[in-house]
Amino acid sequence: MPVYTCTTVQETLGADTKAELAAEITRVHSMINHVPGTYVNVVFHELAPENAYTDGLPAHPLLINGWVRTGHPAAQSSQLVAEVAAAATRVTGIPAKRVLVVIQNSPAHFAIEGGRVLPEPGEEQAWLHEQQGAD
Amino acid sequence: MPVYTCTTVQETLGADTKAELAAEITRVHSMINHVPGTYVNVVFHELAPENAYTDGLPAHPLLINGWVRTGHPAAQSSQLVAEVAAAATRVTGIPAKRVLVVIQNSPAHFAIEGGRVLPEPGEEQAWLHEQQGAD
Amino acid sequence: MPVYTCTTVQETLGADTKAELAAEITRVHSMINHVPGTYVNVVFHELAPENAYTDGLPAHPLLINGWVRTGHPAAQSSQLVAEVAAAATRVTGIPAKRVLVVIQNSPAHFAIEGGRVLPEPGEEQAWLHEQQGAD
Repeated sequence: MPVYTCTTVQETLGADTKAELAAEITRVHSMINHVPGTYVNVVFHELAPENAYTDGLPAHPLLINGWVRTGHPAAQSSQLVAEVAAAATRVTGIPAKRVLVVIQNSPAHFAIEGGRVLPEPGEEQAWLHEQQGAD
Repeated sequence: MPVYTCTTVQETLGADTKAELAAEITRVHSMINHVPGTYVNVVFHELAPENAYTDGLPAHPLLINGWVRTGHPAAQSSQLVAEVAAAATRVTGIPAKRVLVVIQNSPAHFAIEGGRVLPEPGEEQAWLHEQQGAD
Repeated sequence: MPVYTCTTVQETLGADTKAELAAEITRVHSMINHVPGTYVNVVFHELAPENAYTDGLPAHPLLINGWVRTGHPAAQSSQLVAEVAAAATRVTGIPAKRVLVVIQNSPAHFAIEGGRVLPEPGEEQAWLHEQQGAD
């Protein structure tokens, strides 16, 4: 269901670090938002050095943009963004001051996966059960 | 007005398939949301295999993220996401279980095209008429 | 705090133009939304010609997508999108009809930078002061 898009300058993160960060974001999201890891997507965009700026100057930020369904409890969303940000620094070694994590959302019924409209937050179990019945 | 961003691993889609998917998303969006095709943008991001993960493992999803103006009727938005998802599998042959379509939105007055603030949903005709007068 | 993502076909913008556009977006955003330039990120995605379509045909748009915190006054947001769009054409020479600027937002408490949840619009000064105290 969610998609996390991580953007850095090329060669900021090695292949092993990207795999580890993807695994850790997946673990954190799955635990907090009650979604099986099989539904968590993480992608990386790696930019040429001339394609990333902070304060109008070439820079090396780690930008993580997550999309989630609207309607998770506020405390849950706060925990999610905090744990993703903590994981980013823990896994990559990039200091927190260069890490920006933003969570965006839209209604579950504006998204389709596996040919089915996504469940509202809190209704994942019925949706997953129905999916398994269809497999 | 809208922008659809399709993300895959490199070599998942051939050039002809990308062109066909762009044309089909444009046709569907234009028909459902009453926007001329000349205002529909579709872009593709093609990632190295080490840059896409599902469940923390390298994967080959087709992720489609669309941006539209806030305020379309709910039934229209549901139809839009369903038809974009159906078109994605029909055109690419990628099974629905690997296809995720997400529609995000923001208010029309948070967007500018051709130097003009976008029209609210339902007010496209007056906006387009005015534009043609200016050309 | 904000992230602006500029998408074009490869070789549309030279390195100097990208740097100048990044600087100008940073200046405009900083002035209008009361955020120091050191918190403004601008990145560029440059696509192969076969990866960008308008009206289902290969095209050369300049797509600018900005993420900002929810809650800025409406007049401020309108000014922001207008000035970013004007800057895009002024700096790049790309005619307004091929430029689309979209601002998206989510609540400040859905975002973390420097290890801290972002401030609500209007509360930047206290947040920045606290940050400096921590450095």
